[in-house]
Parts: sequence; structure tokens; C-alpha cells
Amino acid sequence: MKPYFFDTYAVATSEFGYSMGIDAKEALEKSRGSIASKIAANWDEVIFTSGSTESSNTALKGVAWALKEKKGKHIIVSKIEDFPVLNTAKALERQGFSVTFLDVDAEGFVNLEGLRNAITKETVLVSIQHGNQEIGTVQDLKAISEICEEKDVLLHTDATHSFTRLPLNVKELPVDLITMSAHTIHGPRGIGALYIRKDTPITKFMDGGFQEFNLRAGVEDIPSAVGFAKAVELVTEEENMRLKAMRDRIIDKALSDIPDVTLNGSREKRLPQNANLTFHYVEGESITLHMDMRGFAVSTGSACFSRSLEASHVIMGIGGDHERAHGSVRFTFGRYNRMEDVDAAIEAISEIVAKLREISPLAKK
Amino acid sequence: MKPYFFDTYAVATSEFGYSMGIDAKEALEKSRGSIASKIAANWDEVIFTSGSTESSNTALKGVAWALKEKKGKHIIVSKIEDFPVLNTAKALERQGFSVTFLDVDAEGFVNLEGLRNAITKETVLVSIQHGNQEIGTVQDLKAISEICEEKDVLLHTDATHSFTRLPLNVKELPVDLITMSAHTIHGPRGIGALYIRKDTPITKFMDGGFQEFNLRAGVEDIPSAVGFAKAVELVTEEENMRLKAMRDRIIDKALSDIPDVTLNGSREKRLPQNANLTFHYVEGESITLHMDMRGFAVSTGSACFSRSLEASHVIMGIGGDHERAHGSVRFTFGRYNRMEDVDAAIEAISEIVAKLREISPLAKK
Repeated sequence: MKPYFFDTYAVATSEFGYSMGIDAKEALEKSRGSIASKIAANWDEVIFTSGSTESSNTALKGVAWALKEKKGKHIIVSKIEDFPVLNTAKALERQGFSVTFLDVDAEGFVNLEGLRNAITKETVLVSIQHGNQEIGTVQDLKAISEICEEKDVLLHTDATHSFTRLPLNVKELPVDLITMSAHTIHGPRGIGALYIRKDTPITKFMDGGFQEFNLRAGVEDIPSAVGFAKAVELVTEEENMRLKAMRDRIIDKALSDIPDVTLNGSREKRLPQNANLTFHYVEGESITLHMDMRGFAVSTGSACFSRSLEASHVIMGIGGDHERAHGSVRFTFGRYNRMEDVDAAIEAISEIVAKLREISPLAKK
Repeated sequence: MKPYFFDTYAVATSEFGYSMGIDAKEALEKSRGSIASKIAANWDEVIFTSGSTESSNTALKGVAWALKEKKGKHIIVSKIEDFPVLNTAKALERQGFSVTFLDVDAEGFVNLEGLRNAITKETVLVSIQHGNQEIGTVQDLKAISEICEEKDVLLHTDATHSFTRLPLNVKELPVDLITMSAHTIHGPRGIGALYIRKDTPITKFMDGGFQEFNLRAGVEDIPSAVGFAKAVELVTEEENMRLKAMRDRIIDKALSDIPDVTLNGSREKRLPQNANLTFHYVEGESITLHMDMRGFAVSTGSACFSRSLEASHVIMGIGGDHERAHGSVRFTFGRYNRMEDVDAAIEAISEIVAKLREISPLAKK
């Protein structure tokens, strides 16, 4: 990113501008191309945004506004979407749209018949995530997209946590809009992307200048775009296998070595980097603090917002109670973790859970 | 910014999170405080956004949506606003709001009586920029804000080009919302801020998580926030005087040395870093290209979007014709310019204009 902060730092411009701006634009378009090709999209089907939150706002509001007069005011999302989709759907509800919040099963999977039945001729958009932000469950996007295609309804998927970690190919899957994020794959914050299949009806969300094919206004953040593309390039299949091995180890060891542990989400169909476990009778917050003192950063509740003590809507959505939600701990693995870290984490959490249970009024003594 | 990419890189979190997240949050809040204090605001009256475009979208749509049921559906903007305000106003028009686009005089000043007369009891917001993006004219914000206060209407100002370059103090001026940008003062792109006076009614524009006092969702871009605060700190009164001296030199020399030149905007009440001149009988695009070949980056048309050959709405707004709009060239000065650069630029532009006029069918021979 550094050369684009210091050497090629001009505002991107066209052939009518100065040459520094033209160089900047080339870097931008090259980055766009790399990201698009990762999902087999055309370069002009991907726009840069300020992050996955904006991508999902743009997808949901953009399509809803574009089609409300022409088709109807109904959208469908799953109950366990991350906040950008969930709260955008609720914002649209306040604007007069009707929203179906689809139930999920005990592992977090959307019921396909439920989806099929929920679609009406007023439905303008279905938004179902790829991999869940907390429990890691990976939806059957193939089946979901085929239902939407058959019913002629547009489909958006929030792939914030799955992009580059799992295959996603818009030539093979009839998905119309995809939210992508950079910082979840060691890229910079403040940048994301949205795939918009050619000819998808969409009203501009961010108004202003004519950047990004006139679909998203704002001076382009070229250093971050370059950093995003580089982050995409650096994710390898070997790395994903390594993350999966760490994930599997922590799940297997926790389930075998520690009593009263529940795995949240699917055992098999889950994000390679994600493990989520409930350690019954103890608080996730206490585990987080004790793990932190030992040098491990884990989280409880939602991925990027363990700031309230409210129970996770995801754990509640899969049929968990408050106790299970509050005792849930999410482990996320990244490029700089090693298998030894996993073993040390397991050892630490075994000790912490045992100690906390000694003082817990809920624990069976 | 670098330590916040590499050392303190965690997602900002609260006291319930891990310590890396708490450190990150401290850096964020410290940056917010520095930016707020530059306009004499409280730290919790400033939110970070992805840039001035998003700040203006949030201000206009947020206030319009919050007050449309309670007060009315009328907003007022000037005709020469930059695209984020202008096109957001037009988007609100398509959503059923009525918008008054205030005329400006030959130097770009909003008529104060015109503003007073345009305000009705249905008016929810007035949005008038501080300094113009092309012609540099600085509005009389004191008078404007007093009219709005007297009429009990909220006032937003787009200070993208004036922030830190001109004094702006929310304790002294009754302005309710202010758009601020980082990259216009040598800070990073992809970040901006919005001042929102305490208790201003505003509906969330970017839905999702609960960041930024639950006023703007999205994982915080801490390296950019830190860079923004640093950029604010580095602007000095001495630097602003230096920019003003360069601006004055180019204006005075162009008007005295080159025939048929018009200064666009006010001679006195203008941004210290901005000069905008029309060289009659020649195309601004040709000047831009020739200046570029000699190593000078200048622009024609709007500040950040000389990508279309459409005539500038600003030059047209101050009563210019197409010929004047197309011959306008904007010079913007920054920290790394020196007075010698200005003299070299004047010499270059004199030669270029003389040569272009030799081949221009419009020029008096």
C-alpha cells in the first residue's frame, strides 16, 4: 500500500486529467480486476465500498428502492444474519417494506422449503449469508440460489467471512450480489467490495460523484484498494487447510477434554477459520478476560461487537437459551496462528473453565 | 498510521473485550477528540465516516428522514454545492422531498434575503457549503447560521475544503452539522468526519453494528482515524498564510500578465489554497494536458471529477457561459508547493495559453 500513499497518491482521473491521476486509476482498476477474478466475475461487476457494512447497505437498500414500485416491497433474510444485513432489513421495515426473517435449524441452516414458501410475487430480494459470523455455519448457497433463480428473485449473500476462505464462483452460482471485506483476510480496514451482477437493478445508496461506474460516490481509496487486492492474492488453499486443521483440533480437544461443552454451528459445513463453543455454567465474558490475561484474544457474542451484554441473536436463533449464549466463545484463526498456539489455548481454556466453574452458582459441583 | 496497521491492529472493543481491542479503542477516541477540538466541539459530537461524501449523505438524508413526519419535507441547498450535497438533495427529491436550489451571485455568494425567504415552516434542513470546491468562494456562515437559528431550521455545512484552512467554531456559530475530510489536508483517503451537534434529530444512514455512538455502523478504520487526526495537527496558521500568498501571487500575475483572463469566485473571501481562472478562447482540458507535460497537476471542472466534458455547474451557477466554464482552470496549493513553483507555473501557463490561442478559432488574432 505504501507507494500509493507516497508516490502515486493522486485522485484517480480519466484521460482528461493529469498523468498522476491516470496512474492512480490504473492501480485502482488492476485491484478491482484481481478481486473480481477471485469470484469469476467481470472487472466491471465489482465496486469498492468502505467495507462490508456499506456493501450490504448498498445491496439491500439499492435493490429494494429500485424495485419497490416495479415489483413489490417484500424482502427475505435469515434470522442469524450479521448486523449490516439484519439491521438494514429492519431499517427497510421502518420504511414500509415487509421483511420475512427466516428461521434456522439447530445448526444454523436455513430451511430450504421455508425459503421457497416465503417467496411471493412481491419479493424483491433474498439475502442469506454465506458463512455465519459467530457460529461459522456455511449455508447451501447452491440450493438457495437455485430456488431464487427458479422463483425469479434476486439473491444477495454476505460473504464477509467466507470470501477467499471458501470457493465462490458467480459463473456457477446464480447469486446476484455479494458482500466482500478486506480486513477479515488481513487486509486494511475501511474498504470492502460489492459484486453486482450485470444488469441488476440498483438505486445508488451513496450519492455524490460519478465514481465506481456511477454506483458509489466518493473519492477512491486507492492504497486500501491495492491492499485489499494484495490480501486476496496472499490467501492460499494451503493456508485455508492449515486454518481448518487448527479449527478441527480445538473443537475435537474441547469436546473430548472438557466436560459440558457444546459446539455451536455445524461440525462439517463450517468456515475453516471458525470454532464456537459454549462452556456451560460459566460466562463468555469471564473466559474472554481470563484468556486475555494469558495472551489469547477470543470473543463472545457477535464477531465485531462484544460491547453489550445482550445475548447473541445467533445462538438464540439456533434455539439456544441465554445461558448457552452467554457461555459461548468464538475462536478465530488467522495466518499468524500456529498449531502450538491451539494446544496452548486448549490448555488455558481447560484451566480457566475449571476454575470458573468452581465459583459458578450454576455449575454441578 | 503505521503502528495501527501492525502493532495495535485489533478491532476496537469495550471493557468486555480483550486488551488489544481496548488499546485500539483508545487510539480511536484520542483521534476523535483532536478532530472535535479543532472546531471547538465535544468529543462525542464527532463521528467518523468513510469520507466527506458519506458525511454529507448522512447529514442530509439523516435529518430529512428524521424530521419528515414531524416537521415537513422541504430542504434548501445552494446551486453550487459539491456533488455529495447536490446529488443527495436530488436523491431526496426523487423520494418525495421538495428542494430549493438557491441562486448565487456572480462571485458565488448565496443571497441572504433569498435564503430567508426560501425557509418555510416545512423546511427541515438548510445545507450551504463553507468554501466552494472549484471557485473557492467562502460563504458568510455567520450570517447564514443566524438566519437559520432565527427561523429555527437546522443548518449543515460542507467544510470539505475549508476545514483547518479557515477558522470554524461551533461554540460561536450555530451550525448543527459539519462535513469534514482528511485527504484534502494531506491525510488518508477513505476517512472523513461529521460533526453532529448534541440532540440533533438524525436517522442512521449506514445501518449495521452499534459503532460511533450508534450513529454509523462499520468496523472502525483506526489507522485512518489516527492519520486524520495527525493531518489536522500538522496544519498550521503559518502554512495557511503561505498557501494564501501563493494563491494571491498566481491570481495577481495571471490577471496582470495574461490578456483575457477572468478570476472565478471572490477575490477576497476565498479559500487560502484555491485559485480558479478562466483563460478565454481556450479549452481547460488542453491547458490541463499541456501543464501536465510540464509537470504541473491542475484541473478543470469540478475538484475531484474532471472525467466528463460536461460544463461545470459552479461556473454556470455564477452566470458563466459554456466558453467560460470550459476555459476554467483550478490551481490548488498544498504543503509541498513553494513560491518558485508558482512562478514556474505562471510562466508555463502564459506560454501555453499564448500557443493555444494561436490555433483557437475563438481567439481574437
